[in-house]
Amino acid sequence: MENHSSCQMKIETGDAGYVLEDVPHLTDYIPNLPTYPNPLRSNPAYSVVKQYFVDADDTVPQKVVVHKDGPRGIHFRRAGPRQRVYFAPDEVHACIVTCGGLCPGLNTVIREIVCALYHMYGVTKVLGIDGGYRGFYSKNTITLTPKFVNDIHKRGGTIIGTSRGGHDKPKIVDSIQDRGINQVYIIGGDGTQKGAAVIYQEVRRRGLKAVVAGIPKTIDNDIPVIDKSFGFDTAVEEAQRAINAAHVEAESAENGIGVVKLMGRYCGFIAMYATLASRDVDLCLIPESPFFLEGEGGLLEYVEKRLKDNGHMVIVVAEGAGQELLAAESLSSATAQDASGNKLLQDVGLWISDKIKAHFAKQQSMPITLKYIDPTYMIRAVPSNASDNVYCTLLAQSCVHGVMAGYTGFTSGLVNGRQTYIPFNRITEKQNNVVITDRMWARLLSSTNQPSFLRSKDVIEVLKQEESPAPTQLLDGENSKTGGN
Amino acid sequence: MENHSSCQMKIETGDAGYVLEDVPHLTDYIPNLPTYPNPLRSNPAYSVVKQYFVDADDTVPQKVVVHKDGPRGIHFRRAGPRQRVYFAPDEVHACIVTCGGLCPGLNTVIREIVCALYHMYGVTKVLGIDGGYRGFYSKNTITLTPKFVNDIHKRGGTIIGTSRGGHDKPKIVDSIQDRGINQVYIIGGDGTQKGAAVIYQEVRRRGLKAVVAGIPKTIDNDIPVIDKSFGFDTAVEEAQRAINAAHVEAESAENGIGVVKLMGRYCGFIAMYATLASRDVDLCLIPESPFFLEGEGGLLEYVEKRLKDNGHMVIVVAEGAGQELLAAESLSSATAQDASGNKLLQDVGLWISDKIKAHFAKQQSMPITLKYIDPTYMIRAVPSNASDNVYCTLLAQSCVHGVMAGYTGFTSGLVNGRQTYIPFNRITEKQNNVVITDRMWARLLSSTNQPSFLRSKDVIEVLKQEESPAPTQLLDGENSKTGGN
Amino acid sequence: MENHSSCQMKIETGDAGYVLEDVPHLTDYIPNLPTYPNPLRSNPAYSVVKQYFVDADDTVPQKVVVHKDGPRGIHFRRAGPRQRVYFAPDEVHACIVTCGGLCPGLNTVIREIVCALYHMYGVTKVLGIDGGYRGFYSKNTITLTPKFVNDIHKRGGTIIGTSRGGHDKPKIVDSIQDRGINQVYIIGGDGTQKGAAVIYQEVRRRGLKAVVAGIPKTIDNDIPVIDKSFGFDTAVEEAQRAINAAHVEAESAENGIGVVKLMGRYCGFIAMYATLASRDVDLCLIPESPFFLEGEGGLLEYVEKRLKDNGHMVIVVAEGAGQELLAAESLSSATAQDASGNKLLQDVGLWISDKIKAHFAKQQSMPITLKYIDPTYMIRAVPSNASDNVYCTLLAQSCVHGVMAGYTGFTSGLVNGRQTYIPFNRITEKQNNVVITDRMWARLLSSTNQPSFLRSKDVIEVLKQEESPAPTQLLDGENSKTGGN
Amino acid sequence: MENHSSCQMKIETGDAGYVLEDVPHLTDYIPNLPTYPNPLRSNPAYSVVKQYFVDADDTVPQKVVVHKDGPRGIHFRRAGPRQRVYFAPDEVHACIVTCGGLCPGLNTVIREIVCALYHMYGVTKVLGIDGGYRGFYSKNTITLTPKFVNDIHKRGGTIIGTSRGGHDKPKIVDSIQDRGINQVYIIGGDGTQKGAAVIYQEVRRRGLKAVVAGIPKTIDNDIPVIDKSFGFDTAVEEAQRAINAAHVEAESAENGIGVVKLMGRYCGFIAMYATLASRDVDLCLIPESPFFLEGEGGLLEYVEKRLKDNGHMVIVVAEGAGQELLAAESLSSATAQDASGNKLLQDVGLWISDKIKAHFAKQQSMPITLKYIDPTYMIRAVPSNASDNVYCTLLAQSCVHGVMAGYTGFTSGLVNGRQTYIPFNRITEKQNNVVITDRMWARLLSSTNQPSFLRSKDVIEVLKQEESPAPTQLLDGENSKTGGN
Repeated sequence: MENHSSCQMKIETGDAGYVLEDVPHLTDYIPNLPTYPNPLRSNPAYSVVKQYFVDADDTVPQKVVVHKDGPRGIHFRRAGPRQRVYFAPDEVHACIVTCGGLCPGLNTVIREIVCALYHMYGVTKVLGIDGGYRGFYSKNTITLTPKFVNDIHKRGGTIIGTSRGGHDKPKIVDSIQDRGINQVYIIGGDGTQKGAAVIYQEVRRRGLKAVVAGIPKTIDNDIPVIDKSFGFDTAVEEAQRAINAAHVEAESAENGIGVVKLMGRYCGFIAMYATLASRDVDLCLIPESPFFLEGEGGLLEYVEKRLKDNGHMVIVVAEGAGQELLAAESLSSATAQDASGNKLLQDVGLWISDKIKAHFAKQQSMPITLKYIDPTYMIRAVPSNASDNVYCTLLAQSCVHGVMAGYTGFTSGLVNGRQTYIPFNRITEKQNNVVITDRMWARLLSSTNQPSFLRSKDVIEVLKQEESPAPTQLLDGENSKTGGN
Repeated sequence: MENHSSCQMKIETGDAGYVLEDVPHLTDYIPNLPTYPNPLRSNPAYSVVKQYFVDADDTVPQKVVVHKDGPRGIHFRRAGPRQRVYFAPDEVHACIVTCGGLCPGLNTVIREIVCALYHMYGVTKVLGIDGGYRGFYSKNTITLTPKFVNDIHKRGGTIIGTSRGGHDKPKIVDSIQDRGINQVYIIGGDGTQKGAAVIYQEVRRRGLKAVVAGIPKTIDNDIPVIDKSFGFDTAVEEAQRAINAAHVEAESAENGIGVVKLMGRYCGFIAMYATLASRDVDLCLIPESPFFLEGEGGLLEYVEKRLKDNGHMVIVVAEGAGQELLAAESLSSATAQDASGNKLLQDVGLWISDKIKAHFAKQQSMPITLKYIDPTYMIRAVPSNASDNVYCTLLAQSCVHGVMAGYTGFTSGLVNGRQTYIPFNRITEKQNNVVITDRMWARLLSSTNQPSFLRSKDVIEVLKQEESPAPTQLLDGENSKTGGN
Repeated sequence: MENHSSCQMKIETGDAGYVLEDVPHLTDYIPNLPTYPNPLRSNPAYSVVKQYFVDADDTVPQKVVVHKDGPRGIHFRRAGPRQRVYFAPDEVHACIVTCGGLCPGLNTVIREIVCALYHMYGVTKVLGIDGGYRGFYSKNTITLTPKFVNDIHKRGGTIIGTSRGGHDKPKIVDSIQDRGINQVYIIGGDGTQKGAAVIYQEVRRRGLKAVVAGIPKTIDNDIPVIDKSFGFDTAVEEAQRAINAAHVEAESAENGIGVVKLMGRYCGFIAMYATLASRDVDLCLIPESPFFLEGEGGLLEYVEKRLKDNGHMVIVVAEGAGQELLAAESLSSATAQDASGNKLLQDVGLWISDKIKAHFAKQQSMPITLKYIDPTYMIRAVPSNASDNVYCTLLAQSCVHGVMAGYTGFTSGLVNGRQTYIPFNRITEKQNNVVITDRMWARLLSSTNQPSFLRSKDVIEVLKQEESPAPTQLLDGENSKTGGN
Repeated sequence: MENHSSCQMKIETGDAGYVLEDVPHLTDYIPNLPTYPNPLRSNPAYSVVKQYFVDADDTVPQKVVVHKDGPRGIHFRRAGPRQRVYFAPDEVHACIVTCGGLCPGLNTVIREIVCALYHMYGVTKVLGIDGGYRGFYSKNTITLTPKFVNDIHKRGGTIIGTSRGGHDKPKIVDSIQDRGINQVYIIGGDGTQKGAAVIYQEVRRRGLKAVVAGIPKTIDNDIPVIDKSFGFDTAVEEAQRAINAAHVEAESAENGIGVVKLMGRYCGFIAMYATLASRDVDLCLIPESPFFLEGEGGLLEYVEKRLKDNGHMVIVVAEGAGQELLAAESLSSATAQDASGNKLLQDVGLWISDKIKAHFAKQQSMPITLKYIDPTYMIRAVPSNASDNVYCTLLAQSCVHGVMAGYTGFTSGLVNGRQTYIPFNRITEKQNNVVITDRMWARLLSSTNQPSFLRSKDVIEVLKQEESPAPTQLLDGENSKTGGN
């Protein structure tokens, strides 16, 4: 599949190592489509805008730290309204679907897609698919109008519901075809975007004049290429509450330890940023940075030292951290392999809390008080903050502009501060991770004073592993694309 | 002065239209300075960081929307630690000063400069200058240590105090020289950075081995080149409270009008972003967009229409909006030119509230209820939110890295998501404004449905005026550098 | 009028000085009304409640600090459901009206009246009168159902709108009669309750079977007898933000002064409680406590002293404080009596700010920085907090129980922690004030260290004035009925 | 012990069934103690207070719903400053200790005891005992001054640390005696107050001139007699966040269920009030109200029905709810009696979540999504809100007044809105519980529409059980003393 889609990648090259990774267009497989002047031309709000329409040649580089004579590298097509559109307003039948877990900003994205379609392009048929991909083959849909969505950005969650999985693609494309839908807006994470890619392939295979566009959603910020995912700022902000509480609990007890588990199955961005923003954290564990418990330079030794020095400590652990340790243990204790037991072990927050308690219980010399906080669902469910609201608005509008302009099989995304259209495979072929040999992580280590948990041989291996970065990786290997350096 | 400093601009050019606007360095005027290996080399937190030190050739383009064959344009030197530094730890005597109005994040910047100097570079002499520039020639200073600054990021304001003006440069440089200070960190806005430029010139004239570095502070986001100023996100977030209150007041009354005045003397960024984030605003007035009250297409007509359609409305007005109207009126009413009267007139929020009340009082047919909210000091005084905290940290650390590396006469700033060093004059020669012929403003107009207040001849003029953008202007004229499109 | 209503006061006496001030009942002027068993009897939720119905003899004393042999004093009828009700469910046609300024909790009270009528008593005809008393003689009304009001308690303001004044009683009673309304719920302050008393008299004069009940609303807490008014807690909480901001501004400037104006036209409860809760305030001015500016023991002397000692200070001023000073000044300066000038003078926050600025400007030796914050509308417009939500619920339910039981001409109110029914005149004949010879105010003085501004002769006068307390005053003269002593 | 202390109860009776349950006094066992005029006499802040000193005869009834001819019942001594005190300022050596779990307001109470001792009574020796009772026999103490405690009320937790248990009374009294401490302020819950009672007995036995006073602390509100415990309002407020999040999660999923566990080991006040304040809860489970899972009228049937009707639901469960079910299960499944298994079972939130999941997994017809939130430590650790701040202030000052006046062996507490002194045994002999045959619980049932889980025979039993209320019980059996009815 991926090979297939790779084959279809539209690559254009230019001088000085310039590469454009373009996105598909309806005209790639349907020739002679009629076009219409963009209705924004006659929109009073836009009447004074100079060069309102994006220049057809505008592109945005993936890499912004450059050398005088370095190659220019990969670029993406800039998002924005085009002079001509490929849909007449009354022809459009759009639908929106949200998939996967909650993330602050979902409702804002929904609201702004609806409003952009109505107010900018005069479209009046917009459906909400109820409850994720699965909703395509159920009967319930929700008619979305500007009035209906007017206040939804002030509420958390998603008003059209969501679910995981459920992507039976042929049935979904049947449903799209049956209902006469010709614009499909898919908001979801990694798996959802993979699903969107397949749906796009199938729509294309059937030769339908229907655009499939994605808006990447991931509270974990684990989507590559883009600067950051919507809702991330809000999540980091909200995580401060839990860290503050853990800090207060730890400070008020003798040898108090506060443990906070934050989101991040495969990457530790929320944990890392929440730690950097808070300054109350003494240890931050993320999936990308392996650690060990026992012995010299191990976690327990550090905890002990920290309690002796400070009398209390705060630990932030991303949910995916240390999974290899948990897995190893679960194998060895063959008797406890039942479903529920297994689950327990996989909660790294409880696991690490138990390990620390057991260690100090065995030692006896140092009674500790440990409090464990899991704020996950309290973070996910808040409405998006102001900066995420603006971000979601731009994301939604960019996506609508691209769709109206006939682009398909793309994801809308912010690259180096500019809205772009990115081919699906760029988004789904790998995950965005904290690069622990990068300065952002070093900054964190320096702020928490925690050990790096790398024994000398690990260091060599990590460095080796990072030596030949994949082509998609940012050349300056920055963790923080908004705050890189 | 500016010519003078321009003369000293360090310009370097390269292929394909590449231009580097470099920053001064101590060695520009003091030859043969000794250098030392960067202490970070032996810092355990950084031991595994690959290519931790910034490549000497790393630069960041000012412009990221590019064409295949377009010129590469202006670049800035990338911020970050260098292999060798120009100060031995025990030689450093640093000072920090904060000037001008309050802004969320000041304390975080102070904290992180102190911590970076101590923990990264082993520096232990850091002074806080008490109460702005003026503090240089008073006796009081505050000794800043990591312990002292440990919790200050959780409080609003600035712990070292601030004041406006007071830059008697010779006396300041005398004070620097007398106290043996060799690193001066100056946090402040436009005027403050101009002062910093003059101080730098004088330090250079005297041939002192003392670095002068600025960190731009402006809650209004009116500093050019950089992506956004610290505290801006927090301010926009906090402004939502006032807008919400105005909305509730307006909705609960018959023909209710809520007026909120937000910061923005010369630019309307806070007003524009707060409006875009809130979605409850029906009219947003900013300094960059002239308006008129009476007649067709005027403000009062729009207010009337809006009340008739909706029953209530919310108006956001930046403090600098409509000053030309206020000035005109103040001239015509020659009798009321006393200090206090004048003051009153200059508060555009009160002025516009009075105008609207008078209009409807005269009309009689439509009784209104108008509530005016000025949340300025409640916004300025909050602690920075999580995203500003991380931003301030990177800004402070970047500045310290540059200073230790011997760069001087520069401002630390985020450009297209990357920390850079920018020559003072780039920051001070003009102001950052909302470009009302740009898409971000169109987006706002489209979201509020307000008139553009431009009569046809204005439109032509505005467009003409914008036609030949100054060389420093972003070629794609984006208002939103973080969310451009 | 008041004499008239006093005549009708239903007084009952008992042993040991026991007095019951009872409320009117429909049967006082309509004999032989049919009664019905309370529908709550068959409500499953109430099926296990022991003695669910209030004992007909239950009363609540106004005075709870008692002596072994002291008289028992005034009592009020306890609120709560009665065995028999005077309305059949399908006979009821209720209406709700909100009058005066906004106050946190209005929507919760509306919601809970609607829900109590529907869910407890099976009533299905509930109207919202649109926009205050005035709405009675306009055409618009809002049909209120549990579904419609389901989420309104999470929003500030009042969904049925409000306005001031407009009580043309005959027209209102005509409207009640014409529409066949037989339960009138009136939510509003002092003036509104007086209006309600007149409406009740007129309804009674006409012999209508229609109940008129009030729910006292006053963010200022200036209603006598009751423990505290709904929304007060929320207001004090929200006021903390403004005080915090003033504190931060003051601390960050040299001789910084933060001035916060809080609600309180005739009483200083919000200012007093906000000051006590915050602990950052150095001076609290309220209407009840006269002050003077100049000379020994005056305000300006204290400000000067405080700045010299501390370097900054925070002043909280209730909007009604010092009005006698402003009035005196406005009379003496005969030239400045124009409308707008007058208005300015009446804003005590601006007035006192100007006085302080002028004083220090004249002195010259001590430059100050003064920031003035008026958070009034930001406080009024927030949704009620959890404790006010519960309070509003009980208040609304108590009112509904009383109305269904045929009581009329009463206000629902919390007295010494118990819901009671209070005759209108008790609520409207005087205002609740901070008693400055009481311990709560002494507590405040002791916490701020401010002068009492009482010269010896004043002290005597104040004490004299308080010597013969009106019969309605709490015998122990407590300011804080929830936290008395 | 209790008998012993009962013997010492100081009971005074009067007319009409008046009973005063008085508190001990130093002079009860030390005759001829010298007294001093109260220093408040010369405090400027108090100079104008009329009758500042509490009348020696002031008492407060426990019961405020009364009948015309009913008996007057139990009264407590009113708190407040007395004309004469039993300690000279420089003689006092006070100490403060906090015990048990965190509760919002602890720091405010500490701050206000310190400030009252310093500012009102001129006392300058105040010690903080570090880390609970245990701290008495460790070496560390913290010197508490007004400057040191100035800002602590803005932080959660307790600055002097806390711990559970550790009351080795002889050692504690030894420590008191050795250090020459003569005022002991003990802040803590049920167990802690029992400890205080024993310490008081021992101090008395040894004939020491040392006062032992308690301030009841319990976030659960499970202390009898008093209106409510400090921190309770703040906790209910903070619990709203978790309930909101659960609601958002539930609404966004198909058959979404949000489960929130709140504090309340033996009583369900937080759960009940949070439910009443939120209005988003469909089921509230508390320790006082038994429930069952299976069968008609059971919990699972209700969940199923609710999901079918509404598509989602929110469940709030107090931590002590259903413990008898958990215990029963743990006994029957003899194989799973290991430590960790047991632990899991005792978390009723997880247990009930598992039961619900298992039920629907077995059924298969109805896939659910359940999210479980445990916000306990995030609630406990917040700073107290404004209303709790004022409450804590009055509580602390009242306690100091009583101690200075020579009262001992008492707890400070709010009774019917008045500060009183209550004998220890009244506070510790039983717990405050939600009375499920009372109207407050009926109100909750009516608001959630949940079943009462009482089968007809239970109803009879419950009613029977409640028939003969203990003499201390409020005659009107109110759950809510601040909002009774």
